[in-house]
Amino acid sequence: MGRIICAGLGPGDPELMSVKSDRAIRGAKHLAYFRKKGRAGQARRIVNGMLRDDVIEYPMEYPVTTELRFDSDEYRQLMVDFYAEWADRLEELAKTEEVVVLCEGDPFFYGSFMHLHTRLQGRAEVEVLPAIPGMVGCWSALDTPFTWGDDVMTVLMGTLPEADLIAHMKRADALVVMKTGRNLPVVKRALAAAGRLDDAWLVEKGTMPDQRTAKLADVADDDCPYFAIVLVHGQGRRPEAAE
Amino acid sequence: MGRIICAGLGPGDPELMSVKSDRAIRGAKHLAYFRKKGRAGQARRIVNGMLRDDVIEYPMEYPVTTELRFDSDEYRQLMVDFYAEWADRLEELAKTEEVVVLCEGDPFFYGSFMHLHTRLQGRAEVEVLPAIPGMVGCWSALDTPFTWGDDVMTVLMGTLPEADLIAHMKRADALVVMKTGRNLPVVKRALAAAGRLDDAWLVEKGTMPDQRTAKLADVADDDCPYFAIVLVHGQGRRPEAAE
Repeated sequence: MGRIICAGLGPGDPELMSVKSDRAIRGAKHLAYFRKKGRAGQARRIVNGMLRDDVIEYPMEYPVTTELRFDSDEYRQLMVDFYAEWADRLEELAKTEEVVVLCEGDPFFYGSFMHLHTRLQGRAEVEVLPAIPGMVGCWSALDTPFTWGDDVMTVLMGTLPEADLIAHMKRADALVVMKTGRNLPVVKRALAAAGRLDDAWLVEKGTMPDQRTAKLADVADDDCPYFAIVLVHGQGRRPEAAE
Repeated sequence: MGRIICAGLGPGDPELMSVKSDRAIRGAKHLAYFRKKGRAGQARRIVNGMLRDDVIEYPMEYPVTTELRFDSDEYRQLMVDFYAEWADRLEELAKTEEVVVLCEGDPFFYGSFMHLHTRLQGRAEVEVLPAIPGMVGCWSALDTPFTWGDDVMTVLMGTLPEADLIAHMKRADALVVMKTGRNLPVVKRALAAAGRLDDAWLVEKGTMPDQRTAKLADVADDDCPYFAIVLVHGQGRRPEAAE
């Protein structure tokens, strides 16, 4: 009997993955990972130099990226077929082998593996190894405490309607905005409307060698890095207040 | 020249700390950690069996726990003096030695170390090693994807006023409530008022050997574990919707 281990990779620095994920990846005979067509893949890049010589790799290439609207029926159908096919292939492999599936960040936190996890229920033994979410790597890159005391923290996707973004940005103390990319101008406008733009940071590739941090207000409007997170720190209750 | 390394410990399972934290802790000659008076301390317990034989330990014992209200001037002053004293001692030690300070969860996410971090700015070299936050360990314990697609996730402290809890609970998709303990009855009432109680889980000591998970609605009113987190999963957009 084999099984499937989904190894969370954390924010990008290979030294920040867990001892457990590190061991699973170094020992893997069968290794699967998502990637865009024609790309090496971010997940695969993180584990460079860690793999056995005889590892067998299974790149799971997304059938589409940005050619179709994510809410079109065609896009949905392509993705449904894609996940179904890989669930079948992993189930088959896991009958006799142990397969490690890589997942950036934490697998259960907006991770791609969840679509396979759901489909594999009752069909194969699946173990998910948690990891440091990308946002944690990003706030570490700023080397400043992110949430304090009674701070309310809200995580938003840049793909949300602008009015929703503004409403949430007004109400929370600490803010994380993911899936920025092309939505960055909207995110910026929403932060300005909520009075939070001057406190916002952009972190691109947090914990990776080419990491970049900048005050969001200083970032040009046409500068929309793909792999970036926007952060606004909380300023909650703390003993300092009495000093 | 020495320095201070704050090693994030993650949710509790020692195998879930990062490769980097693991190495720092195993190599530490000087090891500091917070604990309650008269207790072994949760952070110290996690690293049992990992330490050098000749390690020198510095338990930083909180001067108060629950004897005083956290918003009283007396409590504030005691905590301010406590953090100031340890900032001085660690600064002194870090002039010649490398000191590892343990911190449960991720240090910058509601962590105790932040009070020292702030005070040590410009006085000592400080490196903070990120880790898996406790909440990530708790949702992993439930073995179910926590956030999907465009889900809005909000993290709340059980110490917030009930009306604030209810308002935030109504607006977010996925919910995390920390600092439950004695506030658990209020958290439960707020979840019920927001129509979310039936979807809520209680996870106590997630990823630790004595981990416990329960539907929150089934937990007795006088059952208020200290180290527990309440979770409500998001149900966001996903390809399944088209099937």
